[in-house]
Amino acid sequence: MGKEITSRAQDYSQWYNDLVLKGSLADYSAVRGCMVIKPYGYALWENMRDVLDKMFKDTGHVNAYFPLFVPKSLFEAEEKNAEGFAKECAVVTHYRLKADPANKGKLMVDPEAKLEEELVVRPTSEAIIWNTYKGWIQSYRDLPLLINQWANVVRWEMRTRLFLRTAEFLWQEGHTAHATKEEAITETEKMLDVYADFVENYMALPVIKGVKTPNERFAGAEDTYCIEALMQDGKALQAGTSHFLGQNFAKAFDVKFSDKNNKLDYVWATSWGVSTRLIGALVMAHSDDDGLVLPPKIAPLQVVIVPIYKGDEQKAMIDAKAGEIVKRLKQAGVSVKYDDNDNNRPGWKFAEYELKGVPVRIALGARDLENNMAEVARRDTKEKMSVSLDGLAERVVDLLDEIQLNIYNRAKSFRDDNTHEANTWDEFVQLLDGRGGFIAAHWDGTPETEDKIKELTKATIRCIPLNNKLEEGKCILTGNSSSQRVLFARAY
Amino acid sequence: MGKEITSRAQDYSQWYNDLVLKGSLADYSAVRGCMVIKPYGYALWENMRDVLDKMFKDTGHVNAYFPLFVPKSLFEAEEKNAEGFAKECAVVTHYRLKADPANKGKLMVDPEAKLEEELVVRPTSEAIIWNTYKGWIQSYRDLPLLINQWANVVRWEMRTRLFLRTAEFLWQEGHTAHATKEEAITETEKMLDVYADFVENYMALPVIKGVKTPNERFAGAEDTYCIEALMQDGKALQAGTSHFLGQNFAKAFDVKFSDKNNKLDYVWATSWGVSTRLIGALVMAHSDDDGLVLPPKIAPLQVVIVPIYKGDEQKAMIDAKAGEIVKRLKQAGVSVKYDDNDNNRPGWKFAEYELKGVPVRIALGARDLENNMAEVARRDTKEKMSVSLDGLAERVVDLLDEIQLNIYNRAKSFRDDNTHEANTWDEFVQLLDGRGGFIAAHWDGTPETEDKIKELTKATIRCIPLNNKLEEGKCILTGNSSSQRVLFARAY
Repeated sequence: MGKEITSRAQDYSQWYNDLVLKGSLADYSAVRGCMVIKPYGYALWENMRDVLDKMFKDTGHVNAYFPLFVPKSLFEAEEKNAEGFAKECAVVTHYRLKADPANKGKLMVDPEAKLEEELVVRPTSEAIIWNTYKGWIQSYRDLPLLINQWANVVRWEMRTRLFLRTAEFLWQEGHTAHATKEEAITETEKMLDVYADFVENYMALPVIKGVKTPNERFAGAEDTYCIEALMQDGKALQAGTSHFLGQNFAKAFDVKFSDKNNKLDYVWATSWGVSTRLIGALVMAHSDDDGLVLPPKIAPLQVVIVPIYKGDEQKAMIDAKAGEIVKRLKQAGVSVKYDDNDNNRPGWKFAEYELKGVPVRIALGARDLENNMAEVARRDTKEKMSVSLDGLAERVVDLLDEIQLNIYNRAKSFRDDNTHEANTWDEFVQLLDGRGGFIAAHWDGTPETEDKIKELTKATIRCIPLNNKLEEGKCILTGNSSSQRVLFARAY
Repeated sequence: MGKEITSRAQDYSQWYNDLVLKGSLADYSAVRGCMVIKPYGYALWENMRDVLDKMFKDTGHVNAYFPLFVPKSLFEAEEKNAEGFAKECAVVTHYRLKADPANKGKLMVDPEAKLEEELVVRPTSEAIIWNTYKGWIQSYRDLPLLINQWANVVRWEMRTRLFLRTAEFLWQEGHTAHATKEEAITETEKMLDVYADFVENYMALPVIKGVKTPNERFAGAEDTYCIEALMQDGKALQAGTSHFLGQNFAKAFDVKFSDKNNKLDYVWATSWGVSTRLIGALVMAHSDDDGLVLPPKIAPLQVVIVPIYKGDEQKAMIDAKAGEIVKRLKQAGVSVKYDDNDNNRPGWKFAEYELKGVPVRIALGARDLENNMAEVARRDTKEKMSVSLDGLAERVVDLLDEIQLNIYNRAKSFRDDNTHEANTWDEFVQLLDGRGGFIAAHWDGTPETEDKIKELTKATIRCIPLNNKLEEGKCILTGNSSSQRVLFARAY
């Protein structure tokens, strides 16, 4: 009676799309590769944003807003960055439409309103921001500059997927400026820790912290740190990146500062970002064949109460009791909805809230009330329990914590069960084509080998884990010597 | 010793720019007509946004996010709307850059990556949203749809001014869908009331609620409601608009619903928005020749504490006492900063925080401490008072309320003192060229007369006030009969 969801076993990719669309997170739009984030999906993003925003502010950052457009001449100033993004840039070339003389009621681009210099719709904002920082930084007293921006960006992708890869997406991008290399590296690492903290403790998704190989670095970075998560189909997903940019952008935009001894030097930079892509990770990591499973700490709605009754008299009694429960839950800081819409039957509602991943459902029936009880169902395990109405709010608050922890532990067990070492090429390929997951294997350290492995298997080096164990070994492809294992996976 | 600010008397327009730039609200950018909103300005916007967002949610609205781009064919579907915005549209025509063979290290637009259909960067989102609503609305059960979006929009303006008129700006746009005309009109009026409540009670700026003449309506609306405020130079500023869109967009995008009797009808629509332009209004309405004057309820920083000392011993004593005060103020929900940066002298800090409009400044000197007193200065009146450290926090909390009220009352007196009736053309022109302000005058109700008055005087009809008094009279320009006065002003 609910909406049809394709099972994971049947078609994982379709299952994902079904959840996003039927779970009311997002919708396709009339614009190629762009999605509409629906109210339920946006409420989830707001909760994620609010937690992250507080974390950024608690670590000394402030928000600002920089232009959507980057003049081409600025965009191309940092060559590697420009080269990395040039192929996916939406470009504004004109600033006016006019009536189309050949088509009544239609418009055309006015050829007389051609821009002297084309404007790139920001795919990332290093260029426009470092061009601005040039005017803001003169002395060491102006440093550090710890600025974050919440914004939309556009990267023209050929194959798009809701949340995971869309032409336009929402994100935050931190851009910091420092007097020393050490301080910039510390910042890069600190923000990686903030991301890991957020993804693990709010999204209930365990991550591996590491650094990217030169091949996989952000265009223009000296070093890219990342957090990598594992999805239920055994593919990895990069959940956030933090870049040490060295002095590359300072040099490209000529941003120098005078230090305490009046010596001029280029400023050191970092940038770091997470995006609405995280919602895709959330869906794929925790959900099941009945719908979304959302971690209580970021769920738009934590508890739903559904009345089960016959006739107005029973309804009135349940309404009164539900009102009390709602009040007590709200006082305890829980977001709760009493759904007494009589257009839909309880069974339909149960399926709908399961689909939407509401962590706790309370069913209130007339007989339950007589016994001073309610039926409480948790979304993660689908377990149902009978709970006394006395102390129900306290029990629900505890239960939300249990669910948060259980979702995390389940994802962690899955990740651990699907992380393997491979010591030969055959083992490596067998693992990849079997369960997938993270594969720790030796690599000879050359970009050529990395490219070859990707070409042969579609697996990429997700990262070199931080605090990796040093261990002599032989590259799984070339047999050349290697001093540590790196983490491979097929990835989103 | 502070930063030089042009006085209002000397050059009002330059005074405004000085405040915005030197008060660290915003900066110019490398992109024509686009500004950078600096951290202090953005913190102000965040406070405004948070209050508004709560008001929207309290009135049943939810947030969502729609694409930045509008395909040209959708954009032109509602003809009046399209015609109204066509002249100021940034248009994306290509989706890729490539290396420029003629200029090493430079990029060029790749002519092979021309879009089949051009994309308009949204100047407003009715088109893309109503095209989406078509898929979301079938029955009266899907209505009302009460959705708001926080977003950036682009309107290619030829003459731009920081905050007041920029090519890109930040705003919110509500887009609602209703089953009946009456309900849509009620929504339009409700949101106008929300705006008036916000602008008056948080921004401390009195407004006049009214409806626009057909000439001044939003392109595509049946009726545009507005709130109008008066700036210190006697010019008016439209602070927010709420549009009753009738069935225009439903018809353009074929959005029908079946009512309870299974009869199909077009959906009724509203849209409403306020933008970062409000920050410009805030600056121009309240500030003085020493800098910004910010209403406590939305000021990024409400209280600053400046220590005045000689030597480490005094400093240590003041630090300890300041720590207590900060703690108590924070407990009372006040945002406060203790500025003990010893790179700057107290006098420099006083000027800097005056420039930035921090509502309350507390100076803590060694002698004050001996007497268990502090010097408290309020930004609005520049009054200084000696306050006992016992109960200082309570006094400051009260003072913030007093300042909020005083700023509002001052702006209201100014507005009332600068609102006049004109009964003849000469009176009208004299008032306009004199003190300016709002002028209530009779108008014959024709667009031709309205245009002629604008052409002759640059004054426009700001609105026909709601609940306007009916009164027989003669049009100031034509002498034709009129049944009510309307409100004229020169405007931003």
